[in-house]
Amino acid sequence: AANVDENASARKFASYTVFKGKAALSISPILPNFTKIESGGSRVKKNGSVMLTFFPAVGQRQYDYSKKQLFALSPTEVGSLISLGSAESCEFFHDPSMKSSHEGQVKKSLSITPLGNDNGYFVNITVLNNVQKTNERLSVPVTKAEFAVMRTALSYALPHIMGWDQALTSHPQSPTAPAS
Amino acid sequence: AANVDENASARKFASYTVFKGKAALSISPILPNFTKIESGGSRVKKNGSVMLTFFPAVGQRQYDYSKKQLFALSPTEVGSLISLGSAESCEFFHDPSMKSSHEGQVKKSLSITPLGNDNGYFVNITVLNNVQKTNERLSVPVTKAEFAVMRTALSYALPHIMGWDQALTSHPQSPTAPAS
Amino acid sequence: AANVDENASARKFASYTVFKGKAALSISPILPNFTKIESGGSRVKKNGSVMLTFFPAVGQRQYDYSKKQLFALSPTEVGSLISLGSAESCEFFHDPSMKSSHEGQVKKSLSITPLGNDNGYFVNITVLNNVQKTNERLSVPVTKAEFAVMRTALSYALPHIMGWDQALTSHPQSPTAPAS
Amino acid sequence: AANVDENASARKFASYTVFKGKAALSISPILPNFTKIESGGSRVKKNGSVMLTFFPAVGQRQYDYSKKQLFALSPTEVGSLISLGSAESCEFFHDPSMKSSHEGQVKKSLSITPLGNDNGYFVNITVLNNVQKTNERLSVPVTKAEFAVMRTALSYALPHIMGWDQALTSHPQSPTAPAS
Repeated sequence: AANVDENASARKFASYTVFKGKAALSISPILPNFTKIESGGSRVKKNGSVMLTFFPAVGQRQYDYSKKQLFALSPTEVGSLISLGSAESCEFFHDPSMKSSHEGQVKKSLSITPLGNDNGYFVNITVLNNVQKTNERLSVPVTKAEFAVMRTALSYALPHIMGWDQALTSHPQSPTAPAS
Repeated sequence: AANVDENASARKFASYTVFKGKAALSISPILPNFTKIESGGSRVKKNGSVMLTFFPAVGQRQYDYSKKQLFALSPTEVGSLISLGSAESCEFFHDPSMKSSHEGQVKKSLSITPLGNDNGYFVNITVLNNVQKTNERLSVPVTKAEFAVMRTALSYALPHIMGWDQALTSHPQSPTAPAS
Repeated sequence: AANVDENASARKFASYTVFKGKAALSISPILPNFTKIESGGSRVKKNGSVMLTFFPAVGQRQYDYSKKQLFALSPTEVGSLISLGSAESCEFFHDPSMKSSHEGQVKKSLSITPLGNDNGYFVNITVLNNVQKTNERLSVPVTKAEFAVMRTALSYALPHIMGWDQALTSHPQSPTAPAS
Repeated sequence: AANVDENASARKFASYTVFKGKAALSISPILPNFTKIESGGSRVKKNGSVMLTFFPAVGQRQYDYSKKQLFALSPTEVGSLISLGSAESCEFFHDPSMKSSHEGQVKKSLSITPLGNDNGYFVNITVLNNVQKTNERLSVPVTKAEFAVMRTALSYALPHIMGWDQALTSHPQSPTAPAS
């Protein structure tokens, strides 16, 4: 338990946020989870992700964080985003209750479409709730410079959310005898 | 011996796997080995690699891991893969028993060919066993987004499987006197 | 206090400097600041930056560091710079006293314009001081090779000045029971 | 002194070597040196480099390491190499005795010229010794895949040989009070 507290206090959070007229978009990385394996080491149990958080503007430079909408990008979705050509678009669909009894009640989609003339992208989230009969939509225009930050941050994060940095960390070993 | 146990328990494994209709493909990084040198430090004795593991589908979303086929990419083969143009292909040939008395009994080849229209690649492994008279072939279509994940993960892994991250890690030193 | 001293003595500084006929330009990274949060961990309180320092030549290979002009690039400005096409330019405006009573007294601008024929860029800083009635301008031509160093260093620095490297650092955890 | 021994034993070496018909070429990274500064921290005193080592073939897959020729790439030369277009060439000149009484006795040049058709590069070193009246020249053809390894390894090494990884390493700090 002492260990767990120590971990919690060591945990650090970072994000990249763009604030625009109708909404803001924040992206932040989430670590993978490891599980022990019988041979004594551990392996990735669940990949990490890059969380996109949208929150609507409710006034001049004021945003309502309580009305946020979340979309967690998987490694392959991150791959799609970082390889997006300047005139290309992409769209992802998520069901937050997939494989549960609530499957199909909420449908989320994230689309990224070019603003044109190599000027950046529109990033849109749509959340359709069939139970509450609501359909929320938030759109954030992202400039070319802002998208370059996202692309660089996502490319950096990708090996980490898959645990490759930990798999590629060398631990002290007792090397064999000097080479002849 | 206590040290060795500690190392084994600290070792972490990570991979990236795509599951397709006829087979799945998993890639995972393998660390280099170091050996002590007379001057007191150590140097890379054997480069690491990126292991490709193919396993065939035996039903709806069911794969037979016992029938897996392996192909370990060397640093130069990784270089070939990450610099592959969207309309280019590459092919590598391995003999798992090279320089042994069994040389030539098994011939493995890995080929990567474009799906067309910048849509990704087919990754194919062929294992020809002249003794058992078998010829196994597994093919996995990889989308552009999935290949972007592989390219990013391989680019990240490359300096690590060659030991450059360890050679570039600074150890505490006693700096010289303050600069004037 | 002992802790603080230890930190100060552990702090390391690095830069990349190009010395040209009329001025020199040095770039160096600055770390972000973290602040504790209630749940026990910490989050980025203030992003880091990449500091550009210009200083004028006062003779053959002699530069007057006391006449230096500073310009701190934000993450988004770094994104603009690393995604700059070979024929594109960009310009940023800063007010060092923004949101203080001195707002508007000093106006700084940084512009990056192509030298032409894919030969690199001119990096210019202009500092207009409305109180002292001065207008300083320093220009440094940067070759394609030097800009490649800057681009690579800035791309490397970007996730670090946003704290993503720290958010993506895994701390020892007690993994769950072995996977079945 | 005990500290120094510990450092020497912890030092690790890694390289990437291509063996060709007439000569082999090995590249390996060299760390920067830091020096203490008055404020208590330290700063880069001397940049690291990437060392190119050429050694001639003296038979079938046999190379004479005693006849090696060295060329240390500075950060800007690394920048030139990693930004080299597929049809471009570059050339660097070094005088190993620059600013000494032996200046001009030995002239080294490294040139990188395209093999044509996006097939890689010829990497050539020429060492002209005006005292010994010798002119050594070694050429190594580097394939596109091998150059991709070099480019990736050099891009990775660049921030490290300039000390930016150490300047961007966060040391434990006592964060300020929780944010409100």
